[in-house]
Amino acid sequence: MKVTAEICVIPMGAGVSVSRFVAACEPILEAAGLKPQLHAYGTNVEGEWDDVFAAFKRCHERIHEMGAPRVFTTIKLGSRTDREQSNDDKIASARARLE
Amino acid sequence: MKVTAEICVIPMGAGVSVSRFVAACEPILEAAGLKPQLHAYGTNVEGEWDDVFAAFKRCHERIHEMGAPRVFTTIKLGSRTDREQSNDDKIASARARLE
Amino acid sequence: MKVTAEICVIPMGAGVSVSRFVAACEPILEAAGLKPQLHAYGTNVEGEWDDVFAAFKRCHERIHEMGAPRVFTTIKLGSRTDREQSNDDKIASARARLE
Amino acid sequence: MKVTAEICVIPMGAGVSVSRFVAACEPILEAAGLKPQLHAYGTNVEGEWDDVFAAFKRCHERIHEMGAPRVFTTIKLGSRTDREQSNDDKIASARARLE
Repeated sequence: MKVTAEICVIPMGAGVSVSRFVAACEPILEAAGLKPQLHAYGTNVEGEWDDVFAAFKRCHERIHEMGAPRVFTTIKLGSRTDREQSNDDKIASARARLE
Repeated sequence: MKVTAEICVIPMGAGVSVSRFVAACEPILEAAGLKPQLHAYGTNVEGEWDDVFAAFKRCHERIHEMGAPRVFTTIKLGSRTDREQSNDDKIASARARLE
Repeated sequence: MKVTAEICVIPMGAGVSVSRFVAACEPILEAAGLKPQLHAYGTNVEGEWDDVFAAFKRCHERIHEMGAPRVFTTIKLGSRTDREQSNDDKIASARARLE
Repeated sequence: MKVTAEICVIPMGAGVSVSRFVAACEPILEAAGLKPQLHAYGTNVEGEWDDVFAAFKRCHERIHEMGAPRVFTTIKLGSRTDREQSNDDKIASARARLE
């Protein structure tokens, strides 16, 4: 099952800045072939369900290895059976409706 | 890696009511041993990462089988290395702070 | 406009435990008449849009006053024009579908 | 209180495609001076708390006016007292950490 998803990781007990943890996840998502698109409230990815969640698990493991005792993550996730739709398709579809 | 998580599924293109889809997920989460706790904005679960996300995948598959062409899901997720903490522990911890 | 909503606050730069901050929000939500229902991944409330978000703002202010330099919050929110539906109605509707 | 936020609206009971609803929100966020940044899983904004949530309310009202009987919305929200940080600052901070 193909999915598009957004992940936003919040390390806890690791200080006020989270950018180094976010940065550590990007190569994991990239290496998994998930076409990561970083934005100000998370990173959007796309791929097969199993590949996406295996990569998200490695992100959690990596953040713990870097010293955060607790990680809080929010994920948004979409699958559809009527047609394929990439993250770029979704943006293009909304933009096309803007006057 | 043990996690606690919350899943909230929103079938799209399947009408205004979503309760039958939510209800279809509960036995999947229960059968996976994830101790589901239904509330008004999702279902909280706990278990091993792989078990949790395998069950969430079956929920998506089931909702599509029931006729929803698109599923939008939000997940909140926590892991910690400093100690084990169940969903019941989290609630008890907050309640203990209430005067 | 009546809404149901879920708020989950994550203080950052304030240590690994968040329960005292969560506990500080409950009386604010209660005093606003929002019928808070605490669960393991947030607190569900209901009321008029303006009342809900005025209370959420007071929660942010309170958490900062308690010493957290940064607050990350996730909110889920629903409004509907076809009929009124409380948080209890939502749970009852899903439960009624369980066999 | 200044905040950065992400809003993701999901009209329900209005068919499988949501792009026209998303597109209808962009001018509302723009007109409110919130510097909207559309991405594949929502729109990031920034501004004063009251301005942000007044605009989000108008988005809900507009989507109902367009015919959706139900709207499900997820919001991510951050405030900080230690320093100002825009959405662009957040992206730049993560990018600077990438090797």
